Amino acid sequence: MPSASVPPATPPTTPAIERWAEQVRAGDVRAISRAMTEIENRSRHTESLLRLLFPHTGHAYCVGVTGAPGTGKSTLVDRLAAHYRAHQQTVGVIAVDPSSPFTGGAILGDRIRMQGHASDGGVFIRSMATRGSLGGLSQATSDATLLLDAAGKKYVLVETVGVGQGEVEIARLADCTLVVLVPGMGDDVQNLKAGVMEIADIFVLNKADREGAERFEQQLRAILQIVPERDGWKPPIVLAVATENKGIDELARQIERYREHFKGQDSCRAKETALWKERLVNLLRERLVHRVADELARDGTLERLAGEIADRRRDPYSAVSDILQKAGLGSEH
Amino acid sequence: MPSASVPPATPPTTPAIERWAEQVRAGDVRAISRAMTEIENRSRHTESLLRLLFPHTGHAYCVGVTGAPGTGKSTLVDRLAAHYRAHQQTVGVIAVDPSSPFTGGAILGDRIRMQGHASDGGVFIRSMATRGSLGGLSQATSDATLLLDAAGKKYVLVETVGVGQGEVEIARLADCTLVVLVPGMGDDVQNLKAGVMEIADIFVLNKADREGAERFEQQLRAILQIVPERDGWKPPIVLAVATENKGIDELARQIERYREHFKGQDSCRAKETALWKERLVNLLRERLVHRVADELARDGTLERLAGEIADRRRDPYSAVSDILQKAGLGSEH
Repeated sequence: MPSASVPPATPPTTPAIERWAEQVRAGDVRAISRAMTEIENRSRHTESLLRLLFPHTGHAYCVGVTGAPGTGKSTLVDRLAAHYRAHQQTVGVIAVDPSSPFTGGAILGDRIRMQGHASDGGVFIRSMATRGSLGGLSQATSDATLLLDAAGKKYVLVETVGVGQGEVEIARLADCTLVVLVPGMGDDVQNLKAGVMEIADIFVLNKADREGAERFEQQLRAILQIVPERDGWKPPIVLAVATENKGIDELARQIERYREHFKGQDSCRAKETALWKERLVNLLRERLVHRVADELARDGTLERLAGEIADRRRDPYSAVSDILQKAGLGSEH
Repeated sequence: MPSASVPPATPPTTPAIERWAEQVRAGDVRAISRAMTEIENRSRHTESLLRLLFPHTGHAYCVGVTGAPGTGKSTLVDRLAAHYRAHQQTVGVIAVDPSSPFTGGAILGDRIRMQGHASDGGVFIRSMATRGSLGGLSQATSDATLLLDAAGKKYVLVETVGVGQGEVEIARLADCTLVVLVPGMGDDVQNLKAGVMEIADIFVLNKADREGAERFEQQLRAILQIVPERDGWKPPIVLAVATENKGIDELARQIERYREHFKGQDSCRAKETALWKERLVNLLRERLVHRVADELARDGTLERLAGEIADRRRDPYSAVSDILQKAGLGSEH
């Protein structure tokens, strides 16, 4: 595929966007913040900006933090961020909120949590939500990680609530995934499905001063003994009481140990390649859908077809075939 | 768009698929069950089958049931299904499980819950999970609803955990949406975000024999008073103790009241048209992505490009442009 001869379909780079990218790379908080908003809204600028930033990425270490609601993930992430700051490392924090009406809002979280770090230019904290699908959120999270990477953050902590697809997607995105558990939350060891074992690189037993913590830890250890190692790595269990800053140093130490263990390993590059395959398909999907669906919406075809389907005057499958045909994309199976 | 002249891109209908569709329409449990599996796996047969079934849909009434984990949704749905059966109505139940490693699995749920209804041909219960994105799950749920509709079920109950996007999508799909709340679960009235008010057609206060239920109900009532009515409908609050079968008759009565209220209203058709617009775009996306991504995966282009991106030798945005160009879909913005 001779790429040189192909004109880019990305919106052209303007001097303003070049300036913006420079500001992001310099770590300018307002520039990063503005870019985050654009990423959340999936605006057209996003792509031009990320394209400029992309060659400067690949240096941050991304730590995913997942767990059920109420396990104290946010506090843990805040304390871990503070730890890195105390060691002169720059940190970015992305808290993924799938905008559930049942969980606390992203905005409140931002306000409360920024207090501790507000005056510190070396840490950037942002809660992300999205009005679209969870797929859109995962794309936005991955773009936000790239952004903070390009902005020079050495660690990017991505926190996501461990319900639904969130924790599986975070494990794909992150270099190292922490699964946060709390004893006695109904999160009993025997309730943990195999999925958790697959995604956890490190277990954090938070609120470890609670009753039943010891038994919970023993049970988890027993299970981990029968789980096969991945590339010579056995997920350690770190006991923590995040609210009292206990266990944070040990957690950071285990993250470094994991990082060292996988440094330069083939599995690392394979994981990144797999991730990019998925992101490419996502980007493709977005681009194609915008192209076809936007046009249909504009000329009223979508509305008309949907009405005909609602009335059962035609079926959705032949409607889609017609649309593709009309767009010159008709396929023969 | 002259549809008659356009050849269908859907796989051709075979006599076997026609027979299968007939069996589904006759309510054959094995045929429905097999179709559910195909829908879950998004196999190519799905589309041919649904295309045949589609003209026979539009008769079922779809009730969505959502709420936080632990609110007793499953029991409530089981009791509601039993209520309809007792009134000689056929029922389909779809329990949507976003395959979280943190929540109970779909399979166990099926086994336990089928016991009460196993010998009853008038009720079909199925838990659905998906390995793909939540978008895929929402597509599968909507297809499964069509399937049960075509199979002659008068009521289709769709249960989904109210975390993430699930409950918003269920509200779009369902004719009537129940939001299940439980007093004293941290689900305090003031923690309910505006989103819940937007999607709830009926509130169910489950476990209403618990302490604090009365206060919770009063608070909810106070809030509902300041929420504007939608098309003359004010969401009622139904008190229930599902495990003791309390409140189920009243719940069914409120569902009928809702159904009557909106019967033939313009807002109803507008909602269905909006839903079909969305589903059309989803179908389009699926079709286009399969078309482009499958081909890329087959000839190794995707793997190669992803590797180059992982190595930062090219950026993902220009890669996507190249892919589209190569597929003859290059666009100028």
